[in-house]
Formats: sequence, structure tokens, C-alpha cells
Amino acid sequence: MAMLYDFSNDYSEGCHPSILKVLAETNLIQQHGYGDDEYSGNVTAVVRKLTGNGSLDVYMVGGGTLANLVVLSSLLKPFESVIAATTGHIFANETGAIEATGHKVEAACTTDGKLRPEDIKPFLNKARGHHVVRSRVVYISNSTELGTVYTKQELTSLSEFCKDNNLLLYMDGARLPMALTAISNDLTMEDIASLTDVFYIGGTKCGALLGEAIVIANPQLRDDFKYHLKQRGALAAKSRTIGVQFDQLLRDNLIFDLADHANKMALKLADAFKSLDYSLLVESDTNQLFPVLPNSLIRELQKEYGFIVWNVIDADNSVVRLITSWATPEKEVERFINYLKKTH
Amino acid sequence: MAMLYDFSNDYSEGCHPSILKVLAETNLIQQHGYGDDEYSGNVTAVVRKLTGNGSLDVYMVGGGTLANLVVLSSLLKPFESVIAATTGHIFANETGAIEATGHKVEAACTTDGKLRPEDIKPFLNKARGHHVVRSRVVYISNSTELGTVYTKQELTSLSEFCKDNNLLLYMDGARLPMALTAISNDLTMEDIASLTDVFYIGGTKCGALLGEAIVIANPQLRDDFKYHLKQRGALAAKSRTIGVQFDQLLRDNLIFDLADHANKMALKLADAFKSLDYSLLVESDTNQLFPVLPNSLIRELQKEYGFIVWNVIDADNSVVRLITSWATPEKEVERFINYLKKTH
Amino acid sequence: MAMLYDFSNDYSEGCHPSILKVLAETNLIQQHGYGDDEYSGNVTAVVRKLTGNGSLDVYMVGGGTLANLVVLSSLLKPFESVIAATTGHIFANETGAIEATGHKVEAACTTDGKLRPEDIKPFLNKARGHHVVRSRVVYISNSTELGTVYTKQELTSLSEFCKDNNLLLYMDGARLPMALTAISNDLTMEDIASLTDVFYIGGTKCGALLGEAIVIANPQLRDDFKYHLKQRGALAAKSRTIGVQFDQLLRDNLIFDLADHANKMALKLADAFKSLDYSLLVESDTNQLFPVLPNSLIRELQKEYGFIVWNVIDADNSVVRLITSWATPEKEVERFINYLKKTH
Amino acid sequence: MAMLYDFSNDYSEGCHPSILKVLAETNLIQQHGYGDDEYSGNVTAVVRKLTGNGSLDVYMVGGGTLANLVVLSSLLKPFESVIAATTGHIFANETGAIEATGHKVEAACTTDGKLRPEDIKPFLNKARGHHVVRSRVVYISNSTELGTVYTKQELTSLSEFCKDNNLLLYMDGARLPMALTAISNDLTMEDIASLTDVFYIGGTKCGALLGEAIVIANPQLRDDFKYHLKQRGALAAKSRTIGVQFDQLLRDNLIFDLADHANKMALKLADAFKSLDYSLLVESDTNQLFPVLPNSLIRELQKEYGFIVWNVIDADNSVVRLITSWATPEKEVERFINYLKKTH
Repeated sequence: MAMLYDFSNDYSEGCHPSILKVLAETNLIQQHGYGDDEYSGNVTAVVRKLTGNGSLDVYMVGGGTLANLVVLSSLLKPFESVIAATTGHIFANETGAIEATGHKVEAACTTDGKLRPEDIKPFLNKARGHHVVRSRVVYISNSTELGTVYTKQELTSLSEFCKDNNLLLYMDGARLPMALTAISNDLTMEDIASLTDVFYIGGTKCGALLGEAIVIANPQLRDDFKYHLKQRGALAAKSRTIGVQFDQLLRDNLIFDLADHANKMALKLADAFKSLDYSLLVESDTNQLFPVLPNSLIRELQKEYGFIVWNVIDADNSVVRLITSWATPEKEVERFINYLKKTH
Repeated sequence: MAMLYDFSNDYSEGCHPSILKVLAETNLIQQHGYGDDEYSGNVTAVVRKLTGNGSLDVYMVGGGTLANLVVLSSLLKPFESVIAATTGHIFANETGAIEATGHKVEAACTTDGKLRPEDIKPFLNKARGHHVVRSRVVYISNSTELGTVYTKQELTSLSEFCKDNNLLLYMDGARLPMALTAISNDLTMEDIASLTDVFYIGGTKCGALLGEAIVIANPQLRDDFKYHLKQRGALAAKSRTIGVQFDQLLRDNLIFDLADHANKMALKLADAFKSLDYSLLVESDTNQLFPVLPNSLIRELQKEYGFIVWNVIDADNSVVRLITSWATPEKEVERFINYLKKTH
Repeated sequence: MAMLYDFSNDYSEGCHPSILKVLAETNLIQQHGYGDDEYSGNVTAVVRKLTGNGSLDVYMVGGGTLANLVVLSSLLKPFESVIAATTGHIFANETGAIEATGHKVEAACTTDGKLRPEDIKPFLNKARGHHVVRSRVVYISNSTELGTVYTKQELTSLSEFCKDNNLLLYMDGARLPMALTAISNDLTMEDIASLTDVFYIGGTKCGALLGEAIVIANPQLRDDFKYHLKQRGALAAKSRTIGVQFDQLLRDNLIFDLADHANKMALKLADAFKSLDYSLLVESDTNQLFPVLPNSLIRELQKEYGFIVWNVIDADNSVVRLITSWATPEKEVERFINYLKKTH
Repeated sequence: MAMLYDFSNDYSEGCHPSILKVLAETNLIQQHGYGDDEYSGNVTAVVRKLTGNGSLDVYMVGGGTLANLVVLSSLLKPFESVIAATTGHIFANETGAIEATGHKVEAACTTDGKLRPEDIKPFLNKARGHHVVRSRVVYISNSTELGTVYTKQELTSLSEFCKDNNLLLYMDGARLPMALTAISNDLTMEDIASLTDVFYIGGTKCGALLGEAIVIANPQLRDDFKYHLKQRGALAAKSRTIGVQFDQLLRDNLIFDLADHANKMALKLADAFKSLDYSLLVESDTNQLFPVLPNSLIRELQKEYGFIVWNVIDADNSVVRLITSWATPEKEVERFINYLKKTH
């Protein structure tokens, strides 16, 4: 990649160096496989402590789509559906992975990527009974695919609505650490575990070589989960590989420090765009940034930097997406800002 | 694991140390994701060279069950089936992963885990047409789940039979490096690529942290494979993580050297059992060993060593399975043999 | 049902009496099963003649959802999707039947239930490649679920657009006979067969006891169809039961005469509503009618008649749906009109 | 079919004439659809009375494969399997219909088509936990595909075994009326309903135009069944069509009288073969007959009669299958016997 820096996504680099260090230290210690290694056990213990829930279970898998499809197909009866925002990863970016397990994804349009009870209600008023799918799970992402985060009040309200309507609440946490370290965040890991039925903590985008940690809080949902994992090819024989990484990421808040850095780098970029009077598609204080820019400026920036052109606004302007990560050096952010100021 | 050494499987340790070294060296180099990183590109180039097939494609995934279910579901029409040995991993060990994608696995009993044309013929004589599934793929493992390997003549004969009968041939190569370095082996990577339609080279059991490299040789099968991978959650965002590892494993024959070591350790164990007049369930020169032992001896061995009791022979004897790996130290093998000789 | 007449749907009665007659006449003649009876053969011959296409194939199944799920799952690769209107039966009324076969239904909002190239284009501009499903089939209904029909120009334009974009065109013809006998219709069976890849002729709603006749015009799609049918439980052992019925329905244009009657009864109702200055949700000249009525009037009508309240317009008005059929007696329509005029 | 008579199967003719009569009588009475017609209601009431179980539910579908796939996919979690005999219809004759819903069929070899606890035990001793499917349903047919029937003791023993092992018991009753009227039968409808969790009463092979009546006795399994039916295309809009038929078939024991006739015709054939010293593959007192005959005789019989060559015995002999039905005229049986005696 012959560019100065690539802001296209948060999985461009390897992992936090301390992870390579523990991988090396533990490398030749023999371990059981398929989730029964001691590092995976440690992760469960730490997550139980972080959430104040001593009975939840943790299962680690190789990626987010795999996490989503195993969790959802294990929660749903054949004729039940999951409700998501149209921007939700399972609706917009997973090549029909959920449908491939036999289930409809019902999608609600939102402006900021967040679902609220009002968005869900229309799917519940199904007078036609068995002629339509029955909605059973609500899928949300935190932070969302637009970089926004749920407030404690929003998540509480959604959680209560779900309980009142016999719906399960599942949170895709590919960027949960970024959400929980956002300036506007007022949620804790304890809140997440008590307000959702299942969620996952992202590793791939938060400092790991790969991997996500699925946390099952609802006691009714815990039975048989390993069967589901194995059947979908999601249960790693060498589970230690992911276990060691999360064991390290959850030690001394490392994963949250890494997310905090990613957020700060994005804020720095956001401030620069705002200072030049460019607007943002949506207000975000996590590591995804959606500035609206003139196409001429976009072309200039593309000469030296990587990022995605997200959407067309009008003949002259487009939205672009820039993403920062735990690995984004502050000096690269500053160099980009200088280039932006010079170019615009 | 409070035991002297665990011979239960070949995924108890981490990875070959040189892999950790290149993971560290490449760690902060930005790369594209989803298979478009340069290391994955290198792997394709090397596999093309090793096989003498300049147009085949390589895709890396996190594990063997994932490889099997993506490959098979992409090769089969809804009503088509795959034929396997009853010992085949997809029939015996994957929790119905293939059936979960909608396809029947038709199983043939064999004594040594290998399929021959005679085993397959009964599935083809289906006079009843559309009342039964149509067999379309033959699934074999090399080395097999019983440690046996295919000879060049056997694989050639099977391959020709498949071509003559409109069947595709897929080889599960979770332990392909062990097969290709077995004393009795006369197959090359070139043979494998020309005699099968698809195969995979195992990483998880052959020195990697995790990962398998799917090789698609049949040009008709290459279109769209990334869609299949993504839909099943098998396309890693951070594909570099697996790419770097195979890039290293395929360098200077490392993966074959590792497999050769595993085989040698198993042969050493086999010789010891034979010298004490214990028989083997099946003759194998790869890293899986199935001695038939008195239950009293098994109980003694279990006090210090890990392995699996495979099958009951009679009231007094059972078959056990011992597995060695790239990481098995020769001194541990010797210590085991001494213990065995002392105990028996 | 203690009401004067039920206009809720077009499957309230049994079948056209002449069908019972031929069922009786042929009852004890022995026939092969699973589609190989002579009546099913006759149907194929007649459809070939009606369409001027001597090589198309016809397969009869028990119902519309079964027809849709077998056809679509046989046309699509695992990662491919079907595009439908949001009012389309497969999206709105089949309990996720298509998703249960593993495929996403992508839905476009329309005002009249008809799809046009502009509605489909947004699904094709998927710059993200294998991160999203690939659209492969366009599903339309004629007449639509709102009673509207496609003109020859509309269907031709859609068909050309599909061919240009590597899309297959499938027409759900649950009420195709009503569409083809509508006043505004200018399509023929020949047109339907040449402009679509697959379509079905509805029996359930057009005079049969049950059954639909799937017509496969695209020669590339004909192989293996019986395997698909059998696997989905759609291939009737006693196929004669449906074969005899279509054989009769297609004789002397019976099915079209029955549809014509249904349309005429609906037009009579429509005229009555219009003469009283009630508007229709959408202009239709087939057997489904969607008048917008005051809720007070609806309550009065409900005292004596069956129909569905379709949608709320505002606090005081709703859309209702009335359906007529081949079996609706003209005197019941007149009695309803009198009641309406008296009540309103 | 230019033959004297076809003994190939029991679905060669239409329906019992009295069914056509009630279809005609009820033809223009308007009814609700999708199972809410009054005839379907009657059927439920009659089955409750026949079984002495006032709370079971009855759902009618168009065919046996459809019944099997809806029932089994609604009983099983994704990773659970069904156990069947290798002769079982779902294993041997349904084109992978169960696997297409995502589930493995585990098959046990038997000599007479009947499953006993000993056949099932091997599937339960799965020490490997989540590496293999979990067996959850036992599928049996009565009469079996070989014409044999379960005794009360056999079914009781199987039922108890299932309860003790957390297995559900499902009986495919495509020919249940023949089983219950067999000379050797000692089971009642009451027994069937109390010893199984779900069963179906066959109509297609027992005098109906088409259709099977699924009876759900286990109260835990009744919720949501209409959703499952609708999603698989098994819920007929014009449910009256099947409802009327079962309403008639269950009146005054008609269905059992028809089955009794079929059995008697088969016994007559069996006696003839035995009197000529031909053996039977398996002893059966229902309407399927499997005589072992010289190939030369088979060729002679084929000149005038239809039947299936089931299996090769040796170079000179084969097993053939002859089936009788409610519609088989006694004089055709006698003519066949005369021809047989003359020819052999």
C-alpha cells in the first residue's frame, strides 16, 4: 500500500505487542482444546468479575460474522426473525449470513444507526399471525456502524421494551470497547451484562490478532451453546490462541485503553474537519468518522491516504468514512491534519 | 494438566516459534483485509509453485470444520450429497455441520479409513432417481482419521473413478503434511492438486496458531468462493493473521519438516509397542497411533499420560489413540517408552 | 360463518363443478405417480400449445408458498438473493419461507405492487462485492397482491432489464388468470412464457380444489427440478389429483372464463363504491378491491359481510379488501351493493 | 398403462367414491382457510374421540414427505438428529428432505424395518459430547416400509425407552390404517396416541385424493405448529379440501375398512405365492408383499402386471414388491393368481 497512512478500517495492523509476548511465553504449555484451555477459563472469570455476574458464560470465536450467525441461529426457532437497523452489520454487510441459517432479518430505517422501541413496534403488530415471521431477537451494535453509542437511558428503555414484549436483546460489540470509552458514554460492563441477553466483546478491531468473546448472560440461553459453535465451525480446536489474547486484553483494562486511544485519534480528526467548517454525517465520539467533503478535496486526500467513500450527497459532495484504531500513531493523525489544511 | 505429557491430540501447543517471530516483524505493517493482504497473496504464489499449477486459488480459514462446510456447501446443489467413510471427520466429528448446510453425508464402512471406488459404487446405483439424493462429491482425508495414507495408485484410481462418474473429489488435509512425509507416501503436492478438485492444507495441527489453506484446483469451482466464505463467517477481516503463518510454514518446507518430526515420534512409539508384542488397530506411519492394550496397562499409563481410549475390543482390552505433533519433544517420547516398558 | 356472504378471499369455496365430474370419471383409472400420470402429461402439452413454446416443462404442486420456495431455492446459489416488492407474497405473507431455504429477500417499496427497473437498480449497485448478497432473481406477481396488472410494455421492459443484468425473472401467478382477463391487460400466455424464466399458473384461487402449475421456460433451469420438488415435499405421489384438475381447467379456456367472472364481480363492486364517491387505494381491474371507507360504514358492513380491514388511513377511515372469485354469485354482489347503498 | 393390473403402489387410483360425493355436497359452502374450516375442526374432534385424548391437535398436509419434514424440523434444535431404520422413508426415499432442513438422520440397520431399543442405544453412547449431533427424535413407520407392524409390547418398550432417554417418538403413519387392521396387530388408536409424541394418519395411500393428518399428542410440542407449517409451504389455503376427505374417511371407520380390504388382497396374493413354495423376504400381514422369485418368472409376470423389482438375491432370483390398496378389485387379484399359477 503505497500511501502515507490507511484510515480505511481498524483491522489493518496485527495485534497489540503485549499479546505477541504472552503468546510466546505460553507457547509450549500443553492445553486442552475446544474452549477447555486455562486461558479461556481465565477470560470467563475476568468477564464475570467485570460484569458483576458470577454465572454468565463466555465463548470465543474467530470473527464477528461467525459470532452473529451462531448466536442468532441458536436463539431463534425456525420461523422466528431478528430485528436490526438497516445499517446493522447483519443486514448490510454479512452476505446473507443470518438468512443462510434460515432466518429473516427485519430491518428498520434509522438516522443514527440506533434502534429505539418506536423502531421495533411496527414489527410486533402482526395481526396476521402465522402468515408472517415472529420477531424474537433485537440486534443492536454498540458502537453502531455509524460510530454512535447508546446511552444508559436508551439501552435501559430498549431492554425493558424487549422484556415486556418477549424479545431477546443481543448486542454486537465488535467495537464495544470504543463505545464504553466514548466521552458521551455512561454505560458500564455491568450494565451491558444486565440489560442484554447476549453480547460480544470485539477483539479483531480492538487489539487482537483475531477473535471475539461472546458473553451469554441470560441463564436460559446457556445450554448447548458448544453444540451450536461446533456445528457452525466456530469452535476452535486450538482455542488457546484466542483465549490467551483476551486474557491479555482484559488484563489491567488494556482493551479499554486501546479503544480510548482509537477514539482520541478520531476526535482529533473530527476537530480538524470541524475547524475547517466541514460537517459530519452523524455526531460520533468513537473511532469512526463520517465527514461530508467536496469531491475535489476527496480526490486530493486520496492521493496520499486510504479511506472509504461512503455515500453521495449531491453532485459535488460525498460522505467519506475514516477509521482510527489502537495502532494509529498520533503523528500520522497530525500529518493527515496538516495535509488536509494545506489541501482544502 | 498435572501429567507428564499429553498425547491426546496434535493441537495442545501453540505454534512453531518462527511464526511468532514473523508475526512480530510484520505486526505494524498496514494491510488490506478479507484475504487481500500481501501475505495471503504470497501463500497463493507459493502453493501455485509447489503444485506446478499456476492458476489455482488459495483461501485461508480459521479451522477444519469451517473449511469443510464452506467447501462442500459451495460444491453441492440443494439435493446433492457427499460420500465419506464412516470414520470421516464430516460424518463422525462435526456435529452435523454439513447437514446444517442442507446436505446429506452418505457414509461407507471401511477398515482403514480410506475410500476406494468399490466403496462408492453402491451410492451411485440409485435406480430410484429423484426419490433419493444425488451423490456429487467424494470426501477423503489424507492422512485419514486412522492415520493411514493414500498411495499414488489409490488416489489416481479414485480420481479417475470420480471423473468417470461426474463426481468431484475433495481432500481434507488437516494432516496432509504428515501424509506427504510418511515413509510409505509416494504422492507429491503436484499429484494432490492434479488428482483432486479441492483440498486443504492443515495449519492448526501442523505448526500454526490456527488456520487451514483451501486450495481450489478445478477452474469451474473458483467463481464466487469469497461470497461463500463471507456468508459462513469464514472470511477473516484480519486475514493477515493466517496469511503470515502459512507464508512462514510454506517457506523452506517448514510445514513438512514439522510433520516429519511428528511422524518420527509416532513411529518411535509404535516400535516400542510392537517390541512389547502389542498389536495396532491399523498400520499407520503418520502421527496417529492406535495400539490395542490390556485395560490394566491403560489404567497405569493414564496415571501419568494423556491419550484417548478409542474403542473397546473385549472385556480385557481396548484400543487407545496416541498422537504426536511438531512440538512433541523426543525426550518425552523416550520417557513414555521407559514408563511403558516398566509398567507393562 | 353466520354472514350473508364472505368476500375475505378467493379460496372460500371448493372447485368448479366440472372438476369434480372429471375426478369422478377418471377415479379408478390406474396411473403412475409423482408427475408421471397422463393428466399431468396432458397439462404440459396444453401449456406448450397455449404458450407456443414446445419445449417448456410443467410441474404441479399443492400450493403457492410451496411453488415459490421450491422455484426460488432451485434458482439461487447459497449467497444469492431474490428481489421483491414489499407487498410481494414472499416478503409479506410466507412466514420467512424463502429465508428458511437460506436466501435473503430484498424488498423495494412501491405504490402499486409492481416492480420496475428503477426499483431494482439500487440492489445491483453493490460496490461492496462479497460483503453483500448478490441479487439473482426478480420476483413479481401478476396480478399483484394489490390487484394491479403488468402491461406488455412494463413486462417487456422488466424482462429486458433482467436479461441485461444477469437476473432471472420469476412470476407468481396465483392470480395469473385474473391478470390475463383484466380489461386493461394486453399480455398473452405466449408473452408470459417468453418474457419470464419461470412462472406459475394458480389453481387454488382459480377454480381448483388446490394446486399450482409451475412453468419453466428457461431451458437452463429445467434439469433436476424433480429432485428439488421431492426434497421440499412438493412432489405429490398422487399427482393425478392435481393433474386432472389443471387438465380440466385448461380445457376450452375454463380457467380464464372463471377468472373473467371473478373480475367482473369485482368491477361491479368497484363501480358501486365509486358511485357513492368512495375512493380506491389503488386502481385495479382484477378480483381484489381496496376501497377507502369510513370506519362507521365498515362496522355496518361487517355485521353482514366478511372482508379484511387492510390498513388504517386516519382516525376515521380505513382501507378494506374485498375479493371475489369464480364462485361469487352475481346476486350476492347485488345484494351487497343494495346493503351498501342503504347503509352508507 | 397397457397392462392387466398395476401392483406397483397404493396410490395408483383416485379416492374412495364417497369422498367425491361429500366434496360435491360441500363444494359451495364458504369456509375459512388455512386449517380453520369446519371440516378440519370435525377431524380434530373425531381423532380426539378415537384416541381418548381430548387435548391433542390435528393438522392436515398434502403429503408424507411434507409431514415428515415439518414435524421433524419443528421438534429438533439445529444440532439435534433423528434416528431411523435404514429402510425408513426419511432415510431411504425422501431425497435428503430432512437434511435440507439442517438435520442429520442417523440410521440403524434392521432386518424387518422395525426399530428396537437395542438399535437406538449405540447412537446415545456418544462420549464425545458436542463433537457429534445429539439424538433427539426416534422415527418409526407403522406399518414399516417392509410391511411389518409393531406389536403393543414392542411399541410400549420403545416408548418407555424413549422417555427414559429424553427422546421423542414420532410415527410415520402413511399406512397406519393397514397396520391397525393387520391380523397380527394388537395396537389401538388410543395406544398410538399415548405411546408416541407425534404421529400421522395417512390419507394418500388409504383412500384420499391426497393428504395426511398429523396428530400432536405431546402437549409441549403443540405451540407454534402453524408457523412451521406455513413456513414450509405445508399449510393449504383451501384446507377444506383435505379436511372434507379425512372427515369422511374417519366416519364409520371407513379408512380402516379400506385398509382391511388392502390387507386382505395382499394376504390372498401371499397365500398364492406360498402355495407355490415361493418364500417371502419378510413376513408381513399388511398390503405390501415381498416374494422372492426366479428372474424368469419375474419376466413372465412383467408381461402383464406392474410391480417393482426390489432387490437382487443371486444370479437367478430377485425380490419383488407387490402392493395392494383399498381400490384393488378381488377379481384382479384372482386373475393375477391364475396367471401366476399358469406361468410358474
